[in-house]
Amino acid sequence: MSLTNGLEIPKETLDAEIQAFFDSAPPLKNRVDISEKLEEFVKKNSIPSGSGGVRKVVCVTSGGTTVPLEQRCVRYIDNFSSGYRGAASTEYFLKAGYAVIFLYRRGTCQPYCRSLPDDPLLECFEYMDESNIKVSQPHSEAVRNAITKNRAAVTGSLLLKLPFTTIFEYLQMLQMIALSMRSLGPHAMLYLAAAVSDFYVPWKSMLETDSKILLEKADMALKKYKMHMVVANELSTRKEEVVVVRSNEKVSVHRNNSLGDNDVESPLIELIVERHSAYVNNSDI
Amino acid sequence: MSLTNGLEIPKETLDAEIQAFFDSAPPLKNRVDISEKLEEFVKKNSIPSGSGGVRKVVCVTSGGTTVPLEQRCVRYIDNFSSGYRGAASTEYFLKAGYAVIFLYRRGTCQPYCRSLPDDPLLECFEYMDESNIKVSQPHSEAVRNAITKNRAAVTGSLLLKLPFTTIFEYLQMLQMIALSMRSLGPHAMLYLAAAVSDFYVPWKSMLETDSKILLEKADMALKKYKMHMVVANELSTRKEEVVVVRSNEKVSVHRNNSLGDNDVESPLIELIVERHSAYVNNSDI
Repeated sequence: MSLTNGLEIPKETLDAEIQAFFDSAPPLKNRVDISEKLEEFVKKNSIPSGSGGVRKVVCVTSGGTTVPLEQRCVRYIDNFSSGYRGAASTEYFLKAGYAVIFLYRRGTCQPYCRSLPDDPLLECFEYMDESNIKVSQPHSEAVRNAITKNRAAVTGSLLLKLPFTTIFEYLQMLQMIALSMRSLGPHAMLYLAAAVSDFYVPWKSMLETDSKILLEKADMALKKYKMHMVVANELSTRKEEVVVVRSNEKVSVHRNNSLGDNDVESPLIELIVERHSAYVNNSDI
Repeated sequence: MSLTNGLEIPKETLDAEIQAFFDSAPPLKNRVDISEKLEEFVKKNSIPSGSGGVRKVVCVTSGGTTVPLEQRCVRYIDNFSSGYRGAASTEYFLKAGYAVIFLYRRGTCQPYCRSLPDDPLLECFEYMDESNIKVSQPHSEAVRNAITKNRAAVTGSLLLKLPFTTIFEYLQMLQMIALSMRSLGPHAMLYLAAAVSDFYVPWKSMLETDSKILLEKADMALKKYKMHMVVANELSTRKEEVVVVRSNEKVSVHRNNSLGDNDVESPLIELIVERHSAYVNNSDI
């Protein structure tokens, strides 16, 4: 799938390559849900619109795709993209009367949110008292725009947002979208603004991470980097259990489901704070 | 900097390696600003706290670092991390009376925001009329918590948030933080929850992207992928100018600063909508 090769590829070879990609991809987890949303959206927008004409529908893709390097996805190669162009283009397509399927990378720029700060929730709002929220002045217009215009487009079935992360998700979803838009004929448009990787690592050839060497590595890091403590965890159980490794002890810390603060971080920080206090007191002597 | 090598590295070699990293790193853009914030934060938290004791300060790092593969940073290798553990740990450290320097990857999980949806601004709020905002029910408690607890910690100088993206930013900022916390002695703690790459590509050895081949590639993509149109842009001027490439025309589209909608996407989508209309009308015949 490289752009650098300008030679014409025979159709059979290309078809076989495409088939190999889809065959090797990990299956989409929410395929049924996406499929239902797409069908409903296209159906709603297939009915002639108010002015009598048939509504045009565009799929705007936005943001970069990731290429996982491991099955459990600790490391991956990513393409830089803020998603600004995709979000901006979506706004202008909506303004021009199009319905938009916005296929975007999780966490990237959203339509009508371009002029907001990185964490609008934390940076724009203030609670005056129990029931009154204030939007801080320089952002009040932008916040209203973002909330009302986004809601109007979504509830009016003019904007369908579908998030992806990996290249496997992106290409499978794009295929579903393209197929569901077929019925719209020339009224359908694909506007592919996403920064898509021009390669991928076949899912089956990826290395699984080995959980056995975890404590070995923790011990080694403790010595090599001269740390007081290493908190080791496995990816799959990271929210349930961690092991605190020190030169003279290994403590397994578990999430306590019977307490209010049911994060593993609650007993973990408690343990660390206790050890830190002992360390501070020791330094005072 | 690989964990897989357990051998003891002589101190001089390690020091030289560290020096080489910092020498080769692209300099931080906002070093002065970060330095001022750090100095102020540490100073405020060096004064004995209300209960008479000295306040403890922890630097919590959170999220994954990126390793750019190109100087203009189109592609990079990333470490997966939602930033959940760092954000959760920050909350528990604050609860335990610590002041926290939260060194986090841009876009990852924020303290007190763990139970909110991906886009809380767009998914939790509704404008009832000009001046009344409603928070939708299932999220109202979580939204209040996020806004008030974050604000209390930040305005009370108990939480300093510093964002990074690349491994170059992360390690330079961590060094600055470590140096500024030195004066706190044993009351300082470094809690390094970030998923940091154990390698980097030296900045100077990276390939610059070649802008000359842009239109050549666009032409090639047009033919190879049988598209109607390719929108080409250079990274550095992507918000100012794009070139629309079709089989029979190349149109340069510029941002119009004199108009209200001053995005290049405004004239771009206008052009595309016009060509699409012509295409639809043509199909009708």
